[in-house]
Amino acid sequence: MITNRQTIRIEWGDCDPAGIVYFPRYFEMFDACTRALFESAGLFKRDMLKTYGIAGIPVVNVKSRFIIPSRFGDDVVVESAVSEWGKSSFVVRHRLMKGEAMAIECFETRVWAAHSSGDADKLEGRSIPAEVKKKFGVEVESQRGD
Amino acid sequence: MITNRQTIRIEWGDCDPAGIVYFPRYFEMFDACTRALFESAGLFKRDMLKTYGIAGIPVVNVKSRFIIPSRFGDDVVVESAVSEWGKSSFVVRHRLMKGEAMAIECFETRVWAAHSSGDADKLEGRSIPAEVKKKFGVEVESQRGD
Amino acid sequence: MITNRQTIRIEWGDCDPAGIVYFPRYFEMFDACTRALFESAGLFKRDMLKTYGIAGIPVVNVKSRFIIPSRFGDDVVVESAVSEWGKSSFVVRHRLMKGEAMAIECFETRVWAAHSSGDADKLEGRSIPAEVKKKFGVEVESQRGD
Amino acid sequence: MITNRQTIRIEWGDCDPAGIVYFPRYFEMFDACTRALFESAGLFKRDMLKTYGIAGIPVVNVKSRFIIPSRFGDDVVVESAVSEWGKSSFVVRHRLMKGEAMAIECFETRVWAAHSSGDADKLEGRSIPAEVKKKFGVEVESQRGD
Repeated sequence: MITNRQTIRIEWGDCDPAGIVYFPRYFEMFDACTRALFESAGLFKRDMLKTYGIAGIPVVNVKSRFIIPSRFGDDVVVESAVSEWGKSSFVVRHRLMKGEAMAIECFETRVWAAHSSGDADKLEGRSIPAEVKKKFGVEVESQRGD
Repeated sequence: MITNRQTIRIEWGDCDPAGIVYFPRYFEMFDACTRALFESAGLFKRDMLKTYGIAGIPVVNVKSRFIIPSRFGDDVVVESAVSEWGKSSFVVRHRLMKGEAMAIECFETRVWAAHSSGDADKLEGRSIPAEVKKKFGVEVESQRGD
Repeated sequence: MITNRQTIRIEWGDCDPAGIVYFPRYFEMFDACTRALFESAGLFKRDMLKTYGIAGIPVVNVKSRFIIPSRFGDDVVVESAVSEWGKSSFVVRHRLMKGEAMAIECFETRVWAAHSSGDADKLEGRSIPAEVKKKFGVEVESQRGD
Repeated sequence: MITNRQTIRIEWGDCDPAGIVYFPRYFEMFDACTRALFESAGLFKRDMLKTYGIAGIPVVNVKSRFIIPSRFGDDVVVESAVSEWGKSSFVVRHRLMKGEAMAIECFETRVWAAHSSGDADKLEGRSIPAEVKKKFGVEVESQRGD
């Protein structure tokens, strides 16, 4: 399993009047960490969208626990990995670490999504190509159904 | 149970290159809807923080399902209510509606939090005052433990 | 001259650890106010892009003075108007008012921009249609060159 | 003169439906670059606020030209330096470079600001300490009045 580690400086603009990170900002960080995870598997998002004809990998489900707050000036590390592969969806697990302590755990379920052939304004799930999963070290024949 | 309804215009800056709302923006909208929900119960957040000596009502847990995407120019309605009250925490349920369809369902668990007396940089949970719950129509004696 | 007035509640998430609006958020507000200004002239942005075949009205120049800070819970009014029309660009002036006082003045220069025919990844300026200017009450023959 | 160079990856969430950076995001980047510039001068913002008893260095004026748009996946470099020192204010110049080309030039005027002694909700300018300017290589006696 490929795990990507990203060091992130908490910026002034990430924080709210209570002096801690405004929680929606974490999801921006995690989204960038998913991008970086794919890159560490050799998949540069911009090229990946063109190569496979998809519009994006939108999030359809999020679960997140915020255990320890962070403050501006903190340096945190986000560890990201795909924890589950489906036919057209997958789950990314992010752990935001402050030293040895897990400050946040987040699970993002994302869909491999293309513009609908019937209506370009709609997005619809597509099968994730085997070669994409292989880059993450997944043996494709043993995959579960979606 | 008090339910607040907020109409929100999806703005250009809320949307990503796929033309749909970038999902962290929804959590900003829901945070504003929680503020509006408290206001509809007669609790203006800025005054509430001063009156009760708290630093904020930070989110400690989020669960969200994104069922139907929204695009810039859409008008959506967010229905928000407190679905559960604990001793020092509570759950806000948001339903983002597109017409009759529920496009997103989100549960935010929040803590009634003050600066720690020992360390002003730390936040710690406090008992939610009975009069706050009363404003939401909660009979306080029947509340469950946290 | 059409002037649009938009009341905006300053949200918790707009503010920084100093308790005042984090200045990039104002530009998000002003961008939404430009959208609202066009709407008050009868131009709904999403339709406008399709009708006239443009990709957007990107900002190429910004000048802004921040005179009085705003805090979360404040209600402010933004007055927006097109202060200047060019051939393919125009200037939007925003005044953020706190009561009678002008708290911010901002000038955005924007371009009427389409995807380049040679390279769909590039944007290039196009002549602003006369009927767009007319909706803002501009007599088109007297316009200045760009 | 100290110049800080920061490489920034343009993220998916920085971009709008036209596929280019939504301009308010640049100001978030520039704000982080100002923080990094101070750090390269030996001034860690969080400590600096405590040491000198200030609430922040809020922006009071911004001028920015957006010459070349950036797209998601681009790596850009922001060069930042203090271009002017006043008594209680200073100007930071940012140049966002795409290779050899200057894509954006931005000037931020910022104030060295403390909570007012009369009203903790108000901010007011203070004299920038000589030792702060010295860290940037400024000879303090030759400074101009504000």
